[in-house]
Amino acid sequence: MIQYPSGKRPSQKGASIPSKNNLGSILEDDINRSNEYYRIHKIALVHKKPTPIQVVSVDYPSRNKVKITEAYYRKASTTDYNGIFDGYPLDFEAKETKNKTTFPLSLIQAHQLMHLESVLEQKGIAFFIIRFTTLDITYLVYAQDVINFIETQSRKSIPIKWFDQFAYRINQSYQCPCDYISVIQEHLNKESL
Amino acid sequence: MIQYPSGKRPSQKGASIPSKNNLGSILEDDINRSNEYYRIHKIALVHKKPTPIQVVSVDYPSRNKVKITEAYYRKASTTDYNGIFDGYPLDFEAKETKNKTTFPLSLIQAHQLMHLESVLEQKGIAFFIIRFTTLDITYLVYAQDVINFIETQSRKSIPIKWFDQFAYRINQSYQCPCDYISVIQEHLNKESL
Repeated sequence: MIQYPSGKRPSQKGASIPSKNNLGSILEDDINRSNEYYRIHKIALVHKKPTPIQVVSVDYPSRNKVKITEAYYRKASTTDYNGIFDGYPLDFEAKETKNKTTFPLSLIQAHQLMHLESVLEQKGIAFFIIRFTTLDITYLVYAQDVINFIETQSRKSIPIKWFDQFAYRINQSYQCPCDYISVIQEHLNKESL
Repeated sequence: MIQYPSGKRPSQKGASIPSKNNLGSILEDDINRSNEYYRIHKIALVHKKPTPIQVVSVDYPSRNKVKITEAYYRKASTTDYNGIFDGYPLDFEAKETKNKTTFPLSLIQAHQLMHLESVLEQKGIAFFIIRFTTLDITYLVYAQDVINFIETQSRKSIPIKWFDQFAYRINQSYQCPCDYISVIQEHLNKESL
């Protein structure tokens, strides 16, 4: 883990509001900062989608100001992140677990898997970023491999050994704390050989 | 314009919450319904991004229920729509005007144009869907052509004659009230000739 000079992680600037279930996630923070790095350096253009909120009533405390006074979180129908990398459409979901030996499949919601299947049908690059927080290891795993696991195994969790075989370790640096684009780039380079 | 049996337009089902500036837009409704048609028929996968909202305070009226009691609309940093069509990343913004002779460029916000430029840099397909509501004509116009217009002309609005030359008419049907994918498909077919 990187030690920041102040001993504290920098705060998330101009990032999306945290989702209800993922409040203050460090992984989310790392991905948002990496996306910002990719955007500034024209490497990729990826955004976190805002959490969908159903607005019920609003108030107008002053001219040109709208205050939402009653609203509810809605269930998303897609994944949290999508974007473009060098002509390739990207779509992914980020998950983290404190477990040291397995990744519980219950963390992946049915609508997320269905959405990623639709992304694959449209020839997009669909994947998960999965962090084992206790081990401080982050993997990129392609959605197709997760789907294959679910279809062929009866287990309710994926053992970490499976990740060593089917997933790709994501490196981190201060500027790009979750450098998933390098993994995809390497994969595309191999494909084009 | 299509006449619905009841004499009224069908309401928008399961669509995103309307944005502050675009409340109840028929064009938005038409695009959402077309996206739903594309999704069901596996033609394309395009979603409207939820409006970003800054949540300030929440209440818990009961277990498992979160009520947002204070929140504010935030300015989006991207466009409203993005997705994938057959391996191609799509990104666009929808605009409508009651004008009959020109499209006011003031309707396009600086951040939207900057975002579409970033999409082009990443080799995505970037465009606008522009409807002249009084004339009931909807155009697809590629972002690059709008950028060229802005860079070469001093006018603050685009005359409708320009659209006849540089933009593409979007057809509508009951099932697919804003069939922009057909325009893109035709364009890609020509490119591959």
